Amino acid sequence: MSIETSTDDSAGSTTELVRELSDLLPGGTVVTDADIVEVYRQDWSMDPAAGTPLAVVRARTEDDVCAVLRFASRHRIPVVPRGAGSSVVGGSTAVDGAITLSVELLDDIRVDRDAMAAVVGPGAVNAAVSAAAAAEGLFYPPDPTSSDFCSVGGNVATNSGGANGYKYGSTRDYVLGLRVVLADGSVVEVGGAAPKSSTGLSLAGLFVGSEGTLGVITRVTVRLLPAPSAPHTVAAFFTDHNAAFAAAAAIAHRLRPSELVLMDRPALEVADSLLQMGLDSETGAVVYAYSDAGAGAKAEIALMVELCREHGATEVFDTDDRTQGEMVSRPRTAVFEVLEGHCAMVVEDYVLPPAALGEFLSTVHELAAQTGQQVLTYAYPADGVIHPIITFDPADEGSAGRAFGVRGRLTEVVAALGGAVAGEYGVGADKRQAVAGVAGEGAVALQRRIKDLFDPDGILNPRALLFPGPGERS
Amino acid sequence: MSIETSTDDSAGSTTELVRELSDLLPGGTVVTDADIVEVYRQDWSMDPAAGTPLAVVRARTEDDVCAVLRFASRHRIPVVPRGAGSSVVGGSTAVDGAITLSVELLDDIRVDRDAMAAVVGPGAVNAAVSAAAAAEGLFYPPDPTSSDFCSVGGNVATNSGGANGYKYGSTRDYVLGLRVVLADGSVVEVGGAAPKSSTGLSLAGLFVGSEGTLGVITRVTVRLLPAPSAPHTVAAFFTDHNAAFAAAAAIAHRLRPSELVLMDRPALEVADSLLQMGLDSETGAVVYAYSDAGAGAKAEIALMVELCREHGATEVFDTDDRTQGEMVSRPRTAVFEVLEGHCAMVVEDYVLPPAALGEFLSTVHELAAQTGQQVLTYAYPADGVIHPIITFDPADEGSAGRAFGVRGRLTEVVAALGGAVAGEYGVGADKRQAVAGVAGEGAVALQRRIKDLFDPDGILNPRALLFPGPGERS
Repeated sequence: MSIETSTDDSAGSTTELVRELSDLLPGGTVVTDADIVEVYRQDWSMDPAAGTPLAVVRARTEDDVCAVLRFASRHRIPVVPRGAGSSVVGGSTAVDGAITLSVELLDDIRVDRDAMAAVVGPGAVNAAVSAAAAAEGLFYPPDPTSSDFCSVGGNVATNSGGANGYKYGSTRDYVLGLRVVLADGSVVEVGGAAPKSSTGLSLAGLFVGSEGTLGVITRVTVRLLPAPSAPHTVAAFFTDHNAAFAAAAAIAHRLRPSELVLMDRPALEVADSLLQMGLDSETGAVVYAYSDAGAGAKAEIALMVELCREHGATEVFDTDDRTQGEMVSRPRTAVFEVLEGHCAMVVEDYVLPPAALGEFLSTVHELAAQTGQQVLTYAYPADGVIHPIITFDPADEGSAGRAFGVRGRLTEVVAALGGAVAGEYGVGADKRQAVAGVAGEGAVALQRRIKDLFDPDGILNPRALLFPGPGERS
Repeated sequence: MSIETSTDDSAGSTTELVRELSDLLPGGTVVTDADIVEVYRQDWSMDPAAGTPLAVVRARTEDDVCAVLRFASRHRIPVVPRGAGSSVVGGSTAVDGAITLSVELLDDIRVDRDAMAAVVGPGAVNAAVSAAAAAEGLFYPPDPTSSDFCSVGGNVATNSGGANGYKYGSTRDYVLGLRVVLADGSVVEVGGAAPKSSTGLSLAGLFVGSEGTLGVITRVTVRLLPAPSAPHTVAAFFTDHNAAFAAAAAIAHRLRPSELVLMDRPALEVADSLLQMGLDSETGAVVYAYSDAGAGAKAEIALMVELCREHGATEVFDTDDRTQGEMVSRPRTAVFEVLEGHCAMVVEDYVLPPAALGEFLSTVHELAAQTGQQVLTYAYPADGVIHPIITFDPADEGSAGRAFGVRGRLTEVVAALGGAVAGEYGVGADKRQAVAGVAGEGAVALQRRIKDLFDPDGILNPRALLFPGPGERS
């Protein structure tokens, strides 16, 4: 065991604390092996300032979670709840001397076909829930890019969305009920299994998006939809990204595509380096649009093709064949295959009024040109969501510094354009200052008071969301 | 002015209070004329125990609302916020000595076509918002039965839904941002105009469904969707309501109809008394299903017809003609035309697991037979929502008593079947005990603490939702 920040004195009490905690939990639940703890220090934000936890607890039952929180409350030890650790904003980065409480093993999935609902553990992987629903002819829509490895608990904590958000909404729209362990170790059940109800304040809605700061989710009841049909695909190429955004907006005003994605030229260039698809030198952006509307898909696709042409698309492909559609869509995933392993990335996450997206992307390109930094951008234009991805060489400190510099400038631009600095990845540790700067004072004060009500000692995920962590309070 | 509950002594201070309040507000805003006050004592729940307010304030601006709440906080006078007064559960029933704060005049509607959003005052009528959206080729989905007269503020306060809820959700799904005046008269802005964001705790989600107990809404930003196509219609008649529910469930498992409604035989008989449609003596229930899926509607309708036939429908009509569809759907509205003026109604609002709806309706029929009380039932089966309407003769006290007796029994049945006693009309004053009895202790305690945080003196709509009113606290 290694607690780097411990002095000799506190190391003694640290050992005692870990022993006390271990005595409260089944064998093997408390992990202090340095190599394993190391894995849990970081999430995907790879924060260099990540702390070293007192211990990692891999809960196997809700009772384990309760025991950890009772212990943590008694000793006022912070707790960082953790699902799959796929936060890119430091939502589960470890805190020195805290307990990292992993719920990854609480991953059971039970689909109730009649009720069109599923009861799942917070550690269940998003794609596993989708697959379990599909096996019953049903559909669990929330589909973040990280669906293959992110957890439903994390999705609930950050209200995750994805490319299908305009038609299908985000995680919030599918959460019917939650079981949550509060800071004092007590369990509360909020919402329920009913498809709809209005029976008091929406506590479930308050926990969705609360990023582990109000309680630790131990069970999620989600609603499921009828399975959609296999998607038909449109890919439309534009010289000017402003025209591409205009086409996307025209589509969004007429219908709800099952997915609507825009990629800019820098992103296409990265994809082209793998796929050798012969990217036209004039291409500025591509719009991918899909329809899963069954017998209505053909007409939706025809309308989307027409709107793209009207808005100056230079080339438009469409297909009702699923395999062909996947080939046409390959650049969407190829980008990450190229980047992974070759460089580090800051994956940004903003929301803007849809009409401001074009101007914002122009600014992204100007900043990239000025700084020499590679920035490639995905957008879900109907939702106003835009993800500039700033790459850098992790071995080159100057490069990392420039990347974070670009991010800082973008954050200012977003605020100036009336946008929000977190769209669907959450606030985490990274964006607390940025969010606090934009949110109204009254709203921030109310959020702090709600936090204090749920977690008077401030032990729950103290670095995340809006709230001052230990030592930061005046 | 008449304050029925005043003694001579307090009448003096009452007069002073009203004078002080009037001095704070523009002329004509404070109403004390007994005839007009009388109109504001009751909402559609027609609670015989409705109080007499100190005064009615018809706010014309947000400033008026702030002034009222500052005054009310200073004097610890309860405030009952009121939109259109169409609550059937006493959500805006007046309280003795309180201020009834009407926001009906805050009814401006501004549609932003580009942003696919509208900014509306809480007093705007639901149908007016829908019409303003339609004028821009857009769609505001929340569509309660009372859409022609209920207010958006009330819809937000109760998270209203309607027959289109399975496809389009409820009011909550369309609220992007709110301006709210808190109990102390301060203004807070929560959420925003962004189609999606995750920037802190969802305070907007907490105000939705809070029934005026946390603050007074003065502005609502709602998202709008592309306009759907004109609906195609299916009407399928069944001998047995259980078969009708099974057909509806089969439909909901395969697709999302734009509306899905079930009416039972007693409801059809009432409609038939007006429409003389030659109701078959064997008919036990009808399922109305609609598709607004444009080019996909024909296939959706065909599937729905097939599923109804598979589940034993004795007659199935379908039409792609809007006017014919409206004629086929006439029984849905005819019921209310017959009942209004002829009798009083207790319109109940429950949510059940969809699989339990058939059993519940059988119990409704048994209770009606046992008590001799007329009960007719509408359901939105895909959402689990069911509305038994218990009629009675308001002049006959025994009849009213029996109606409320039936309601009490039904409430118990709902709880036993794992349902919720408020689906989409809210809790109001009428259902507080029933809800408190069903909700978990932990959840109720958390709600009370949030209420105390927002409204420490308990002045906001003290008879509504979960919270003990003045004099009820131990």
